[in-house]
Order: sequence, then structure tokens, then C-alpha cells
Amino acid sequence: MKPFIHTIFIASFVLVLTTSVHAQNSAPLPSWNKSPAKQAITLFVKNVTTEGQPHYVPPAERIAVFDNDGTLWSEQPMYFQLAFALDRVKTLASEHPEWKTTQPFKAVLDGDMATVLSGGEHALIDLVMATHAGNTTEEFSHIVKDWLVTARHPKTKRLYTDMVYQPMLELLTYLRANGFKTYIVSGGGIEFMRPWTEQVYGIPPEQVIGSSIKTEFEIRNGVPVLVRLPQINFIDDKAGKPVGINQHIGRRPIAAFGNSDGDLQMLQWVCSGNSKRFCLYVHHTDATREWAYDRNSSIGRLDKGLDEAKTEGWSVVDMKSDWKRIYPIINQ
Amino acid sequence: MKPFIHTIFIASFVLVLTTSVHAQNSAPLPSWNKSPAKQAITLFVKNVTTEGQPHYVPPAERIAVFDNDGTLWSEQPMYFQLAFALDRVKTLASEHPEWKTTQPFKAVLDGDMATVLSGGEHALIDLVMATHAGNTTEEFSHIVKDWLVTARHPKTKRLYTDMVYQPMLELLTYLRANGFKTYIVSGGGIEFMRPWTEQVYGIPPEQVIGSSIKTEFEIRNGVPVLVRLPQINFIDDKAGKPVGINQHIGRRPIAAFGNSDGDLQMLQWVCSGNSKRFCLYVHHTDATREWAYDRNSSIGRLDKGLDEAKTEGWSVVDMKSDWKRIYPIINQ
Repeated sequence: MKPFIHTIFIASFVLVLTTSVHAQNSAPLPSWNKSPAKQAITLFVKNVTTEGQPHYVPPAERIAVFDNDGTLWSEQPMYFQLAFALDRVKTLASEHPEWKTTQPFKAVLDGDMATVLSGGEHALIDLVMATHAGNTTEEFSHIVKDWLVTARHPKTKRLYTDMVYQPMLELLTYLRANGFKTYIVSGGGIEFMRPWTEQVYGIPPEQVIGSSIKTEFEIRNGVPVLVRLPQINFIDDKAGKPVGINQHIGRRPIAAFGNSDGDLQMLQWVCSGNSKRFCLYVHHTDATREWAYDRNSSIGRLDKGLDEAKTEGWSVVDMKSDWKRIYPIINQ
Repeated sequence: MKPFIHTIFIASFVLVLTTSVHAQNSAPLPSWNKSPAKQAITLFVKNVTTEGQPHYVPPAERIAVFDNDGTLWSEQPMYFQLAFALDRVKTLASEHPEWKTTQPFKAVLDGDMATVLSGGEHALIDLVMATHAGNTTEEFSHIVKDWLVTARHPKTKRLYTDMVYQPMLELLTYLRANGFKTYIVSGGGIEFMRPWTEQVYGIPPEQVIGSSIKTEFEIRNGVPVLVRLPQINFIDDKAGKPVGINQHIGRRPIAAFGNSDGDLQMLQWVCSGNSKRFCLYVHHTDATREWAYDRNSSIGRLDKGLDEAKTEGWSVVDMKSDWKRIYPIINQ
């Protein structure tokens, strides 16, 4: 168990570093430049938190939902969970000699991403099932934590949990300080996120909604466990996001934050309520400090959403001009 | 909209009445007689909330899960949700002339419960699908609220929400006052419970876990809604309860309360963790003030659970001798 304790220690340390930037500032949203998006956020919060005002919302109903990939942390050149799956194929390869000749595993082991991606959704599902299932929920949680304290992003060389957006960390803190309950609503795996979202974002496991595989209750050697099965349970993307929110929360949030067309239905659903609502898209415009992509990207495509934001009057963050800093300051 | 506002007003009034009993008392659990169960509860709470003690649990991990039917409110002579479904068949009958000749609907309209029940699970599912689906989540919530302020239990003549257990209301309050987050984990319908659990139990919709039918995102006349489909999504009973808890909460609770074999796997899972855990069964022993049933009941059977409680040292409430009062005092 020693290595695991070590892991926890490092993870806690990362947390202190990634959240310290905000703690030093007393004005809200210090990493946000003065911009229409920042103004719209603070005006909305003032409107819904001022008692006696027409748009006042009681604390229990102040629910804000955030997409994760591309909204709270980066998602290029591939979703970080896919990087995890690829690393996991390499780790497990010795137990699976058949992978040397079976796709998409062979391509992963050969480092041939073009072939992996040419297999489309089917290949990705095969990868997820082979790397995410077969263990208990508690074992999987440890595997994810262990990966996150060692794996580094190929371009930035940062830990993946150091590629969260500093301005969004500040936004989460600001909303919570104003009585909001903050949730993640991601197409990513719910059990891939829960082991670290509390430390990194301050969002506890019960406020994380995501895609999932089925689990089954089993008594193993006299100990009750939940075993992860290689079957899809729920895809929390596009029209699945409002469905997932309703399943988990049971009421309509009053604020939603996303970055892609995969978040469009969530924003539509949240911002169509009767009372004051707030919807915002993070637009990836910064090719120097992060990545620039939108209508033609295969990852995090923002096309219909960009048009609808204009029609509906939703806020759009221009990362390049609106954010002073992208990632937290860390001691590397 | 007038009738609905009226409904809300009455519901709020019911809330004030049902919770006022506790507010008058300052010692915890006033409706509980001195008993091993009461002692075990207060000792457990002391152990996990006293900082520096070996069994101390930080507040974020103080999660307690409660079954609903038979644990927080009565369930005889039939689950209250079934009474709702039967009433709903009568309400909808004029729109369904075919029900006059189709089972199980004909039997419901004829008041012939023997025939309804002889159809088994299949007949019950038909009833639920016909009465719980086809509307939006928001419409269904209003239907449930409207029913609860008028429907009365055939034996007690009380509103169903006045058939919650006063000692359990006090237990919920006591746990929350000690930093616990209280959840419902019920075989009943999640969207049948959520409209009223906050007012009656102080448990918000996001802390209710239950069985569900599928929903679908749709834009109706320009308005995004979630439509309830006649398809089962999840059955939150028996081995499904730990699965449902993991899906919604993402961590293992430290206390579980149930009353039937349907809760057994939940109690097994909760009480097998490494740290200090607490499991309790409510045993229905009071034929005068409530109902007496256990090993041979078709509703709320408690057989294996009663044996396992003894083996595992779980607490068992003897309703007849342990509880001073069953239901809250109300002004009828």
C-alpha cells in the first residue's frame, strides 16, 4: 500500500499548488481580463443572489453545470482519457499476447495513431472496454490516481491535472462563494473523473456526471464489491447531457458552461427556463498558449453552438483576449 | 395555474405540521424510547464526529442512505406509488376506452385488486408505463404533487405524506445536524419521490436515488423538454441499490437504513467498508399503530435480512417497543 499513500501525498501537493493562485487574490476572477463575458458573469451572479431583486434565486436552486474536456481542462491533441487508455494498453499488453496481432491494440502498441483513429468510434469503444472494465470500482479509482501523478502531456510536459484552466478554477470558487453548487457534466467517464475532481476543482464525486459502463454487485472472497463490466451504461453527450442532469440532479440548473457542440443541448435546456439563466461557451482561440480550434475540429467541434450563442445572446469567452493566464502557476 | 399554487400552499402547510414536532424538542430523537438501537445510533454518531478519535470521519464522507417504502413511510396494504398508479388509471380512463376490456386496466377500473395482483410483475409494469410515461418531467412532477395533497390512505385516512415515521424524521434531522448528508435509495420511482422529499424529509432532489424510466430530450414548440418514455431505465432494488449508490454518489456511505430484503445488498455493501459503519433494519412489529409483518409478507419481506442482522451485529428497531410514536401529530 506504500506506493498508493505516496500517490495521495503527491496529489494533495498538486492541489495546494493549483489552487494557491486564487487564494492570494481577494477580488473575484483575477485571471479574467475586463471583457463582456466577465461582466456578464458578475452581473448574473449579482442578479440571482440579491434578495428582494426580481431575479433572486434561493441557494438550493443555484446549480451550475460545467462540461469538463475543453471547458475546465485542455482536450488536445486528444482527450486526456484516451491518453490514459493508450497508456493502459501498454501496461496491460504483457497479459494480452493476442493484442500484438489484433486491432486497434496492435496499432496502439506500434504507436500508430492514424490507424487507431481510422477505426472510428468502434475502435475507441474496444479500447475503453479493454482498459476500463474487469476491475472493481475501487481498484479502478486507484489506477486512475496512480496514472495522474506520473503521466505527462506530450506538448506541455505538465501533469494533466496541471492543465486545468486557472480562470475556470476561479469561476468555480466564485460561484461557490455565492452559494452555487457546482457540477461537472462531461462526456468523459464518470469514474475516470471522480478520483480527482474534488482535489483539483473542489467538486466532490457526487457532483460529477459523466458517461459510464455498467457495474455489478458481487461478493468476492466474502467482500461485497462493484465490478466494472465491458458494457456501455450511459453516454453523457449531446442530447444525453440534459438526460444525465435530470437523472442526477432532478432539477434544471440556472447556469451552464461548455465549449463544444456536445454541450449545445445542455445549454439549450438550461437557458430555456423561465427565470434568469446564464449560458457560456469557452472559445478556443489561443494557438500560442493553448490551441485554436472550432468549426472544423474533430475534437471539441464548436460550430452550431457558436451560431446559437449569437442568436441566443449567450456569453462567449475568447480565450486569447479574455484570459490573462491559461494554466495555474506551478513549481515544476 | 391557480390550482397548482393552491397545491403548493397546502404542501407547505403540511410540511410545517409534519416537522414541528421535532423542532419543539432539544434532546435528539425524542420519539425514540431508550433502546439498544437508539444507543447504537448515538454512539456511532459520537464515534465518527469526535475529532481525534480513531473512528473520526470527515464531514464530506459522512453519507447516510435510507430506503423509503417501509423505512421512512408506510408501505401497506400496498406501496403508495401503486395507489397513485391506480388513481391515475381512473383519471385517464376517459381517454382510453380500450381499458374497459384490457387487463390489468379493466381490473383496476372494476376495483378488482386480486386480478390486478394476479398479473404479477408484468401487470404492474404495464400499469406504471401507462400512468407514469408520455409526459414531460415537469408535467409529471405537478401530477404527483397534485395527487399527494388530495389522496388519502384507505385505512388511516391520512394524506400519504403524513404517514412518514416521526422517529425517522428526527433521525434524519439528527444526522444532518451532525454533518451527515442524507440520501434516499429506494426501489420506488425517482421522479415520484423528488417532487416532495425536500419538503417532507428535508432531502433535496439531487439526494434521491430510485428506479427510473428512460427520458428523451426533445424540442417541443420551440421549448426544450425531457419526455418520459415507457421503457425501464434502472431498477434500484436488491443488488441494484449498491449500483445506484455508486452511480449517483461515487463513494461508499458509512450508514444505511432499510426494512426489507430489498435493502440487504445495500446494507452488506455499506457495512463491509474498513472504517466504522452503521447498519439498521426497521422491523415492523406494531399491528396496532402500524402493521406487523416480516418473513412471509409479499410487501417488504424481511427474512434473510433479519438473520444477517443478527450475524453481523446490525441494529434492529422494534417499532412497537422502540418508538413512542409512529406518525407525526397533525391537525386533521
